[in-house]
Amino acid sequence: MFKRALLPESELPDRWYNIIPDLPAAMPDPLNPLTMEPLQPEDLTSLLPQKVIEHEFTKERWVEIPDRVRDIYKIWRPSPLCRAERLERALDTPAHIYFKFEGVSPSGSHKPNTAVVQAYYAAEEGVRRLTTETGAGQWGSALSFAGALFGLEVNVYMVRASFEQKPYRKSLMRSWGAEVFASPTDRTQAGREILERDPESPGSIGIAISEAVEDALSRDDTKFALGSIMNNVLLHQSVIGLEAKKQMEMMGEYPDVVIGCVGGGSNYAGLAYPFMYDRLTGERPKTRFVAAEPAACPTLTRGILAYDYPDTAGLTPPLYMHTLGHNFIPGKIHAGGLRYHGDAPSLCMLVEQGLVEARAMEQTDVFAAAIRFARSEGFVIAPESSHGLNAAIIEALAAREAGEERVILFNISGHGNFDLAAFESFLAGTLENPDVSDEQIAASLRGLPVPADVA
Amino acid sequence: MFKRALLPESELPDRWYNIIPDLPAAMPDPLNPLTMEPLQPEDLTSLLPQKVIEHEFTKERWVEIPDRVRDIYKIWRPSPLCRAERLERALDTPAHIYFKFEGVSPSGSHKPNTAVVQAYYAAEEGVRRLTTETGAGQWGSALSFAGALFGLEVNVYMVRASFEQKPYRKSLMRSWGAEVFASPTDRTQAGREILERDPESPGSIGIAISEAVEDALSRDDTKFALGSIMNNVLLHQSVIGLEAKKQMEMMGEYPDVVIGCVGGGSNYAGLAYPFMYDRLTGERPKTRFVAAEPAACPTLTRGILAYDYPDTAGLTPPLYMHTLGHNFIPGKIHAGGLRYHGDAPSLCMLVEQGLVEARAMEQTDVFAAAIRFARSEGFVIAPESSHGLNAAIIEALAAREAGEERVILFNISGHGNFDLAAFESFLAGTLENPDVSDEQIAASLRGLPVPADVA
Repeated sequence: MFKRALLPESELPDRWYNIIPDLPAAMPDPLNPLTMEPLQPEDLTSLLPQKVIEHEFTKERWVEIPDRVRDIYKIWRPSPLCRAERLERALDTPAHIYFKFEGVSPSGSHKPNTAVVQAYYAAEEGVRRLTTETGAGQWGSALSFAGALFGLEVNVYMVRASFEQKPYRKSLMRSWGAEVFASPTDRTQAGREILERDPESPGSIGIAISEAVEDALSRDDTKFALGSIMNNVLLHQSVIGLEAKKQMEMMGEYPDVVIGCVGGGSNYAGLAYPFMYDRLTGERPKTRFVAAEPAACPTLTRGILAYDYPDTAGLTPPLYMHTLGHNFIPGKIHAGGLRYHGDAPSLCMLVEQGLVEARAMEQTDVFAAAIRFARSEGFVIAPESSHGLNAAIIEALAAREAGEERVILFNISGHGNFDLAAFESFLAGTLENPDVSDEQIAASLRGLPVPADVA
Repeated sequence: MFKRALLPESELPDRWYNIIPDLPAAMPDPLNPLTMEPLQPEDLTSLLPQKVIEHEFTKERWVEIPDRVRDIYKIWRPSPLCRAERLERALDTPAHIYFKFEGVSPSGSHKPNTAVVQAYYAAEEGVRRLTTETGAGQWGSALSFAGALFGLEVNVYMVRASFEQKPYRKSLMRSWGAEVFASPTDRTQAGREILERDPESPGSIGIAISEAVEDALSRDDTKFALGSIMNNVLLHQSVIGLEAKKQMEMMGEYPDVVIGCVGGGSNYAGLAYPFMYDRLTGERPKTRFVAAEPAACPTLTRGILAYDYPDTAGLTPPLYMHTLGHNFIPGKIHAGGLRYHGDAPSLCMLVEQGLVEARAMEQTDVFAAAIRFARSEGFVIAPESSHGLNAAIIEALAAREAGEERVILFNISGHGNFDLAAFESFLAGTLENPDVSDEQIAASLRGLPVPADVA
């Protein structure tokens, strides 16, 4: 029996899996934010590389991974899949717990799986410069890394609060040659308007997206890159699950339940969709799927399914998704990557159809799980990923209760090396579980671009 | 051709390599610090686990790795060995550059290779508690991780200056359940004496060792653990090179030159000694070996070969080694793991015999190399490891000059995620190259336990 299934390089997937043609129903089109008519590929031409737009709209089930992308994936892929036997023993459970570990990438998370693709196509198409936003810094780091390998200039609009609280993330991006700005900046109209109203604005992902988009649209040599929720991003992330399927086969098992954390949905879809394919095609009709989100930002469990903007300023195409409203401001939790008001539309449909179970987790439970994992399996993992871990522990304890040898697979989207201040707070007992009231959600849902009952 | 040679679990070595019986001459014995007579195994009984003492004195060439240690190694081992093709292209060199990557361990460096062994034997022998010192925090983290897996209490005396400047390293140790004290403390006689003289003492590795040793000797349930320079540590680290030999075979190559950074010598010996075996036995008589150290702490290049204490207070057995004097205080460089006054005795002998070439590196050159590596190969690596990288780049440029297809292998002892403040200083242009004068070295060499001309 393996502890850790290592695929040889030759087993690195040569195509991505696209779930769109296999979904149980057609997805409502994204909208053009100016006309509110269905979005057309050409509406995105000035914003994204052509190939990225193609990936966004494709209905093909399999999409070939370019050789140069595979070549860069090989810096850290295939990533390991491990059996967590020590955790099983600590939980005294008959369940078999496996985790896929994306923390081995150069930037420490799953984000480079799509950053490398977006940077590659941009460079191929003669783009010289990419702009993007980043909150906690995972995505900005991934794009900075990818940009360095393709000789692209990368400009990152980083939420000011994070810019000030997480100086090391900024240094990491700068080590790869990126320029990092504290958003709101005075470089864009969107930023200047915010600063005029509030010179001390701590910024937000929504504002940072608006700035990065405006910057990209203002220059011919520049495109924009986004790290989650879009179809193309989920397509690229499928490399995680495609590897995991082969690795579970090496382990001689197939998961009964596939688990991960959800911010925008990219790491979870990345792991889950290739297994979901088996369920949708009827080959594995009983596999369960669990998506773990923070109780402080409960998009899937307490949001509504409606059209909403991915950004705060309303510059980006409204998507039909679970949302808490694009003005929703979640409580202060350390899992910065999960503090997002919406989710990937395909994932929302799967939740709506009952194919994915969504669960909300309290911050202190999540950190208790992370500490348990560190002391049994050794790795200190990201607070985001620890939501999935906590869901896996809940499943393992349910399996003990039921006396079942349940096979559990969860995704570790990243390591926790940049989150140690949060672990320190948890160990000091000062971590809290921020509340979200129904009134707060109802209030932020008032600004939807299309009333929920129309869509 | 592979980019990254991944050994399957089944190829994880089942025995360590001990260079002692193959050295070109007999090594001068360590001394008992009380009597200055040759140290006997029983002199260490109250300080170290019995099996660790056996490993320290063994003359056997091969030592079996216990199953439970191999089981834990499998959390991250075999570690990857990669071809740095992008760096080769950036340097326009015909050289083939390979690196072994130890940054994938849970604590982020090669240190757990021995920490796990020391914790295992301690637990086996009924020890409940381990004490140790740490400077920058790599070793303390590794022992905290290892202790957690074996249910041992771990107490770390961390140099106060680091304790205050590197709070995240402390949080990491605490996440694994260790207690961390800022040394000098008032918990030990050694600490109290320092504090009486200087209440604001920033501490030093030497003081921290003295405290950890005194603590261990004062309690029956406690032993001490050390992370470098000792024979047993180098033995355990040989797993790096044993794997690397198999991986170079997968690559279809054998290194012409084997490179690494040297603080106390454990990561370098770990990679190099299994290849040195081939040279010493005459199978590969032409392989070259290069040890890279900081110009600010030039033990191998400017120290003398003499008996000296491993710690400042003189509680530990004098070793015959290259030393700058146990009172030497190196300039402030960010490669904290290389700020040590001595080196492993076997490595010193190999340098003395001309089998290992020692080279000193300026801090700014080392960081320039690290940035070059990050932007070509993707990984941001530790400043310590970047000394080896810089030596590899020098070799690759020499190969270009000579028009040779030289095969270069270097060790990356750890990732740079906890060193980003240093990268920020480098990028801001504020990093300096501290000077060491001959007078400074001569002055600190005045306190040797045995005059250099006697030994």
